[in-house]
Amino acid sequence: MSTSRSWFCIPRGSHFSLANIPFGVISTATSQTPRVAVAIGDHALDLELFAANNGFAALSTIQPHQAVFSQPSLNAFAALGRPIHSVVRTYIQSVFAEDTPYPDVLKNNSTLQKQALLPLKDVTTHLPMKIGDYTDFFAGMRHAFNAGCLFRGPENALQPNYKHIPVGYHGRASSVVVSGTPIRRPNGQILLDPKAEKNIPTFTACRKLDIELELGAFVCKANKHGEPLPINEAHNSLFGLVLLNDWSARDIQAWEYVPLGPFNAKNFGTTISAWVVLADALEPFKTKGIENDTEILPYLREKEEKNVYDIRLQVDIKTNAGNSSTVAKVNGRHLLWSFPQMMAHHTITGCPLQTGDLLGSGTISGDTSAEFGSFLEQSEGGKTAVKLSGGEERKFLEDGDEITITGVCGGDDSALVGFGECVGRIEPALQL
Amino acid sequence: MSTSRSWFCIPRGSHFSLANIPFGVISTATSQTPRVAVAIGDHALDLELFAANNGFAALSTIQPHQAVFSQPSLNAFAALGRPIHSVVRTYIQSVFAEDTPYPDVLKNNSTLQKQALLPLKDVTTHLPMKIGDYTDFFAGMRHAFNAGCLFRGPENALQPNYKHIPVGYHGRASSVVVSGTPIRRPNGQILLDPKAEKNIPTFTACRKLDIELELGAFVCKANKHGEPLPINEAHNSLFGLVLLNDWSARDIQAWEYVPLGPFNAKNFGTTISAWVVLADALEPFKTKGIENDTEILPYLREKEEKNVYDIRLQVDIKTNAGNSSTVAKVNGRHLLWSFPQMMAHHTITGCPLQTGDLLGSGTISGDTSAEFGSFLEQSEGGKTAVKLSGGEERKFLEDGDEITITGVCGGDDSALVGFGECVGRIEPALQL
Repeated sequence: MSTSRSWFCIPRGSHFSLANIPFGVISTATSQTPRVAVAIGDHALDLELFAANNGFAALSTIQPHQAVFSQPSLNAFAALGRPIHSVVRTYIQSVFAEDTPYPDVLKNNSTLQKQALLPLKDVTTHLPMKIGDYTDFFAGMRHAFNAGCLFRGPENALQPNYKHIPVGYHGRASSVVVSGTPIRRPNGQILLDPKAEKNIPTFTACRKLDIELELGAFVCKANKHGEPLPINEAHNSLFGLVLLNDWSARDIQAWEYVPLGPFNAKNFGTTISAWVVLADALEPFKTKGIENDTEILPYLREKEEKNVYDIRLQVDIKTNAGNSSTVAKVNGRHLLWSFPQMMAHHTITGCPLQTGDLLGSGTISGDTSAEFGSFLEQSEGGKTAVKLSGGEERKFLEDGDEITITGVCGGDDSALVGFGECVGRIEPALQL
Repeated sequence: MSTSRSWFCIPRGSHFSLANIPFGVISTATSQTPRVAVAIGDHALDLELFAANNGFAALSTIQPHQAVFSQPSLNAFAALGRPIHSVVRTYIQSVFAEDTPYPDVLKNNSTLQKQALLPLKDVTTHLPMKIGDYTDFFAGMRHAFNAGCLFRGPENALQPNYKHIPVGYHGRASSVVVSGTPIRRPNGQILLDPKAEKNIPTFTACRKLDIELELGAFVCKANKHGEPLPINEAHNSLFGLVLLNDWSARDIQAWEYVPLGPFNAKNFGTTISAWVVLADALEPFKTKGIENDTEILPYLREKEEKNVYDIRLQVDIKTNAGNSSTVAKVNGRHLLWSFPQMMAHHTITGCPLQTGDLLGSGTISGDTSAEFGSFLEQSEGGKTAVKLSGGEERKFLEDGDEITITGVCGGDDSALVGFGECVGRIEPALQL
């Protein structure tokens, strides 16, 4: 059985090839209750309908659990664990394979095809997981260095702990939104002239609104409170990945973040892509990350040398004037720490990770400015404007700007494993 | 009708007088499904049973909503909003009043009394709310000053933003536990000699385990994403208060917290008291907080001058050797910012607060060392041992130490509004 060719029309270049099978939550105009689906080519397969029509009849493993596909989030499915995700994904691949051993399930069942295979353009995607806690890490070493240079100069750019600890902080779960949700420019306190002697803040709409290009990881298997996840078992808790845009208000951040870290600068919106690409689907694209030249403590040492992913990431901007430009292209491998390392560190104190928790990688930047994953870095802290097409330029985001992040793995156009898009458009600040 | 005297035996000095009526979630050995209750004297009134036996027959407002009392958290009740909380609390007070207008509901109904009034000693209390996000503020100005002195000296102890912003950070919701849950000493990375030239951390059990005496506030009414809570409406989102112990690993914190703030130092456990004292019950104890000598921005200006609470807080320790000592006594008024100010600031960017979110006040310390709400302050950063009874002393916590926080309002022993206890005992670290 070949899983690279399908009886179903999957356009070449689709992010959602047979090699992928990402999971999401959808609704339609005629059926507005959110439920679970997979994306395949230009379509979503409604798994609630598929299950109700005996689509999983041949898969005894999932039979007792089919209610998970009628949920408004992937949490119940995720909680079943990676062995079950693997079985379900492999089965769906085999149902769509040209030489499927289950031709009557869908290939020869045009009624079910019409009911359950929905054009993506007619589908509304929802936040795929009910997020308990959201933690944002700082594993993009080049970004950490770039940001450090702007604040402290190149000699002290990386803090002494940086190569020992997957540095991270607790983020705001309630403001994580799905791709396509508008992002309103936040208001807040800003120190207009940080060099003035009197530190008197001004109340204003954010003037340094930025993006952060990140990968997000969802947790499937929880650990008990008080019991750390051993580093070489942590991959069992990795459900899958999404693209993540950690919108940041740099001027609010500069004034507020001492001594307890970013707060309002980060809690007005975090956008994730709609389809969770399962850890299994990404397995063939594992690669080595940034080499750590520091000896790390045993609880962070992974057996697996290839612990990050070769994902081609791209940031595009479309301005209100209609000009589109590519802002950055960078590979997902530019991380010093892997998600299993982040999870091992996060739980070493006994902190419980729960199904549905979201971990952000931190901004991913490569070595050249065309690979920098934020405007802060691209514009050198607002000093140099970034040139866009149509003669436009940006230091930070303007109202009406639409940012699209994409990410894709694989060289064969008929077997791409991609994330689709992570999109957000800036709305003007509220007048308060 | 007097609400200060009851036909029911409420011991003098009880935190749970008729003036209080705090809400919690309970189960018993014979009925193990968690459900909603109120505490009254030495008893819990099981509101699921009370409702099922027509206890609320006279209260038409709550009739359509009685299912909220069968929930395993207070979230559904909280989401009904403060006007409903007020009606329910006042009704329960009237049911227990000596001259109750509803004598047949409970006073003359010994069957229901036996079923629904459960001795607290036979009851298991659960985490009262399903917590979405937990945010910890830093509004205890004396604590902020004390901690700042230890890190930066008295001249730069308070950061320039401190009196302009209710400084806060996102905490870890999944590790919030109810009073009585043991706290395991965390392991982590510590820099044993911060003055050594090479910054090489050691993996060890935390050696500077500390408490933080705080008040916690639960959110009832959510705000929409993108729409700030106006300062003078924020009180409508205040469900009620609990005691909060923000256990802190000072040595882990010192190494990890630059530049993104506390993370693993705070995510191994946060204990809250089991009974939520409604905002209404605390209304008579409103008082002025610390005067802010800085002009604050309009979005933080409250009409109400009395915006914090006169709560007598106390921290006690019981050691493994059985010696009990009072560590600190401090009043809840020692806050620079009120909970409505924290909520107005938290949402000014549009960040959505949701029903069940928890806000911590930050450590509350008064002016003298006997009023300091952490061992960090009491021991001057570990320099001076705190004397306990039985000749024992502590710089930080030892295994087996049990910390009890209490808090109570009111001068009349028959009308106290108290929080009960917030207890946690330290278990030895895991050997990894």
